[in-house]
Amino acid sequence: MPPINLCLLGFGNVGRALVRLLAEKRDELRQIYGIEFRITGVASRRLGWLASPDGLDLDSPGDIETLSRLTLSQSGIREWLEAAEAAVMFETTSLNPHSGQPAIDYIRTALESGVHAITANKGPVAYAYRELAGLARQKCRRFLFESAAMDCMPIFSLFRETLPGARLLGFSGIFNATTSVIIEAMESGDSFEEGVRKAQALGIAETDPAHDVDGWDAVLKVCEIACVLMDADCKPGDIERRGIAHLDPAEVRAARAAGRPFKLVARARLSAGGRLLASVRPEQVSSTDPLSQASGGSLMINFELDVLPGLTLIAHNPGLKSTAYGMLADFLNAVRDHMR
Amino acid sequence: MPPINLCLLGFGNVGRALVRLLAEKRDELRQIYGIEFRITGVASRRLGWLASPDGLDLDSPGDIETLSRLTLSQSGIREWLEAAEAAVMFETTSLNPHSGQPAIDYIRTALESGVHAITANKGPVAYAYRELAGLARQKCRRFLFESAAMDCMPIFSLFRETLPGARLLGFSGIFNATTSVIIEAMESGDSFEEGVRKAQALGIAETDPAHDVDGWDAVLKVCEIACVLMDADCKPGDIERRGIAHLDPAEVRAARAAGRPFKLVARARLSAGGRLLASVRPEQVSSTDPLSQASGGSLMINFELDVLPGLTLIAHNPGLKSTAYGMLADFLNAVRDHMR
Repeated sequence: MPPINLCLLGFGNVGRALVRLLAEKRDELRQIYGIEFRITGVASRRLGWLASPDGLDLDSPGDIETLSRLTLSQSGIREWLEAAEAAVMFETTSLNPHSGQPAIDYIRTALESGVHAITANKGPVAYAYRELAGLARQKCRRFLFESAAMDCMPIFSLFRETLPGARLLGFSGIFNATTSVIIEAMESGDSFEEGVRKAQALGIAETDPAHDVDGWDAVLKVCEIACVLMDADCKPGDIERRGIAHLDPAEVRAARAAGRPFKLVARARLSAGGRLLASVRPEQVSSTDPLSQASGGSLMINFELDVLPGLTLIAHNPGLKSTAYGMLADFLNAVRDHMR
Repeated sequence: MPPINLCLLGFGNVGRALVRLLAEKRDELRQIYGIEFRITGVASRRLGWLASPDGLDLDSPGDIETLSRLTLSQSGIREWLEAAEAAVMFETTSLNPHSGQPAIDYIRTALESGVHAITANKGPVAYAYRELAGLARQKCRRFLFESAAMDCMPIFSLFRETLPGARLLGFSGIFNATTSVIIEAMESGDSFEEGVRKAQALGIAETDPAHDVDGWDAVLKVCEIACVLMDADCKPGDIERRGIAHLDPAEVRAARAAGRPFKLVARARLSAGGRLLASVRPEQVSSTDPLSQASGGSLMINFELDVLPGLTLIAHNPGLKSTAYGMLADFLNAVRDHMR
């Protein structure tokens, strides 16, 4: 089998972690799946548009700077994918939390060009899942995004592959680690601001954690999961949202002392009439509730199915490597499907 | 597509729950997967060998008694599968915890006859996984068993389908609900015997819970998971085992009061030299340990992967319907693979 050409759109922390993981797994993928690959395109704001169908050497960062760039015309990304003879595009550009753009356009172009599109970006899934999934089907390509909601926790492939014929009635979970860390810091006597700095020191919170704190990050994830797994036709703006900034530190400490600590809880459920009831808000959670089981940097989701009262998944302290792995798993699933 | 012929070997609680679930899901399977099916064979010690390639009517139990039986020669089950023109066999006969027989022979015969074999029986997986999986590959049929370890929790398909390229380094978990219920009863002041009766009243413990209490049930599950997911060449007898019968009620109460309650913990890990280190034994678990998160009738497993520090799955109070669903999922996965 000839090597599969991979392109990376976006080359920040996640993109770099993916390149490292691909190198680490190269021999295993050859031995287990018979898959060979090479990276033939990299593009980012800083690097410009790099493409070479014979493969780029990304092992020594110094070399990247010396490679020649494409000067793209209006058609932009399409030209780059063509020059790289891309089979798979990994999209890890910055999130635009209020429209999902321009990542949606990037993914649309990749799929239209016959390239599998794999993203770790919440925007395209939360704002354009139906359109992009439909386009992928039409083009016999895959649009996959396991790292775009719960880091690499396999929730989309779980329903797609391992739970056939099961109906999802609702879900709840802790979808944002930054807010968990801030609340836990407040429980131990820190101010809200000190909690933010703790989460940043742990590498969990962004420089600007506004979208974590105001619940918007979790709302995007609720929207993704509801659209993909419950076929809901919802937009992030439809989801009830309250952040944690208004929480009173004394109240937070008292809640913990009483054994019912605050968590930023995400919920979604289909009403009897088929309407999606969804929210993200601080709630007090008892110690017997599965929601109490995510602490610190962990993410958790609890599914309610017609065939099983509750199935909980928890990812303990996922990191950059986990996010990169979610994209690797998507890549293997996209390619395996074509090999079966 | 012509209907798929299903046969049930064993017709106890799980077999009956499967028949109910198949009836409940009939329209959905037709609409979503284009799958039609009929039950053409049922066999149990009580019922004898029933087969009709045009389908058996199992809706009214009274009718079952009036159907004519096969009188089987030596070749037994093979004749029955042929008379039923079986495509899929669901095996739910009683567990033989010390050899896995005769279920191993049943499954071998089914696969040799070109029939997909789906089991909810721990024995064949714990004692003969390699042989049966190899035979299935050779015959281009499937040997699937999602309900044979953690009720319907999708752990085998999780690795097969959703976690490609991930390496399992070890796992730990609470694999037996009866012992959890007994320990919790002892924590609240009951004797061991009262705990057993509580578990029986909840429908969790068997009439004879000996194999739950002595850890053997959990040992079989450790063996299944290690063989299938870690390619270990182990037998149940190789696994270190201590049950809960020797636990002192006062010690159990004190451990709970100190916030480090006892659980019957299952563990497996590959040593640096590739040897499997596995055990089932009562351990005290702190409240921050993921193992503390399974209580009452719940089952949980915590996977340690090379690409993710910890991934936990918890099934909350799975019941007969859940076990039946695991077999339905196996059926759909077996058939979908052939449809792709």
